[in-house]
Amino acid sequence: MRLARVIGTVVATRKEESLIGFKLLVIEEMDPREERPTNNRLVAVDTLGAGEGDVVLWVQGGAARVISEEHRKAPLDVAIVGIIDAVDIADE
Amino acid sequence: MRLARVIGTVVATRKEESLIGFKLLVIEEMDPREERPTNNRLVAVDTLGAGEGDVVLWVQGGAARVISEEHRKAPLDVAIVGIIDAVDIADE
Amino acid sequence: MRLARVIGTVVATRKEESLIGFKLLVIEEMDPREERPTNNRLVAVDTLGAGEGDVVLWVQGGAARVISEEHRKAPLDVAIVGIIDAVDIADE
Amino acid sequence: MRLARVIGTVVATRKEESLIGFKLLVIEEMDPREERPTNNRLVAVDTLGAGEGDVVLWVQGGAARVISEEHRKAPLDVAIVGIIDAVDIADE
Amino acid sequence: MRLARVIGTVVATRKEESLIGFKLLVIEEMDPREERPTNNRLVAVDTLGAGEGDVVLWVQGGAARVISEEHRKAPLDVAIVGIIDAVDIADE
Repeated sequence: MRLARVIGTVVATRKEESLIGFKLLVIEEMDPREERPTNNRLVAVDTLGAGEGDVVLWVQGGAARVISEEHRKAPLDVAIVGIIDAVDIADE
Repeated sequence: MRLARVIGTVVATRKEESLIGFKLLVIEEMDPREERPTNNRLVAVDTLGAGEGDVVLWVQGGAARVISEEHRKAPLDVAIVGIIDAVDIADE
Repeated sequence: MRLARVIGTVVATRKEESLIGFKLLVIEEMDPREERPTNNRLVAVDTLGAGEGDVVLWVQGGAARVISEEHRKAPLDVAIVGIIDAVDIADE
Repeated sequence: MRLARVIGTVVATRKEESLIGFKLLVIEEMDPREERPTNNRLVAVDTLGAGEGDVVLWVQGGAARVISEEHRKAPLDVAIVGIIDAVDIADE
Repeated sequence: MRLARVIGTVVATRKEESLIGFKLLVIEEMDPREERPTNNRLVAVDTLGAGEGDVVLWVQGGAARVISEEHRKAPLDVAIVGIIDAVDIADE
């Protein structure tokens, strides 16, 4: 699981049928210590109602298809699974 | 899920039997914010009719084998799952 | 499996229902030879009672969902599976 | 799926029993646009009769175990699945 | 599958119950062409009796859990699956 910030959306009219109805967001990975973006930008499916600017928790691989029966049947490998309220890093 | 541009094709006469009939395209990963290529170039299976120059959405790992019964039985780890019409990144 | 040090926590009120009750820790990957952090920082689920400063053993991918029936149903891809007492590297 | 060139072989007398009989080749990933090696070198199982110098198509992860019942039972994560005749990249 | 050299051991008294009894080794990935270490160091489960200094073949992901019924139930993502006798790279 990693952190990211939601930075945009993508539109794909032609796509796998099992993806219809899923909201697709562009996310930018965020380093939890520095709280700044890395250069890793992906497209994630969202079912939590995340919006632009939100800091989110995301998973990759098979974990993205565990969420529901609809997720299980769709070719998904990145999913938002939480919206972050606070990151607390210990002082060194 | 990541974005990429279709840049070519590969031909493989000798291959796993379960791959026969699948169209294989060379894709170049594209950063969704900068809309320019990264250095990551792969071969993806396509069942949506993508063509050279198209910007596509692709998945990796087990997600590539979720698409159909034929996909499930074939050694596939990268698949095109959408053709992108628009990428909309929020102003900072 | 890799080593990491626990450096913090994250709070996410809105999340996938199957994640409720799991403790989420921020971990910083640690090189076992140099015993210093790499730049890889993630969020891991913990069921061993790890705390800040602990050096832990973690897994990624499907391995994170093997641990229990609750793990299996949750969108998890990083889990702490051991707390390290000692790392012993051979002299070259 | 990625491209690679076969550059060698490895011999392992002591190994998991389920690996006995599988041919193991050293492959060097190849960039499909530049047609030159990257620095990524792996060991892949081959059941197509690939030989040194051949350009091959390979998969990683669970895809490597989809190929046959013997593959399914063996700890394999990289497999050669095609021998490339031609790579055709569009002019920019 | 990749090559590595065994460089040490880790001790973890507190760990997932399903990991009890598994030997855990620190390995350092080795480039098969250059026969020198990369900077990738991990912890791998070993059931072949590998020892310090041995060059080994290792797998990652679900492949690490294919080996036995005990492996299947344990949160493992890196396993040693062979001990290398010889690497033979073709002259260019």
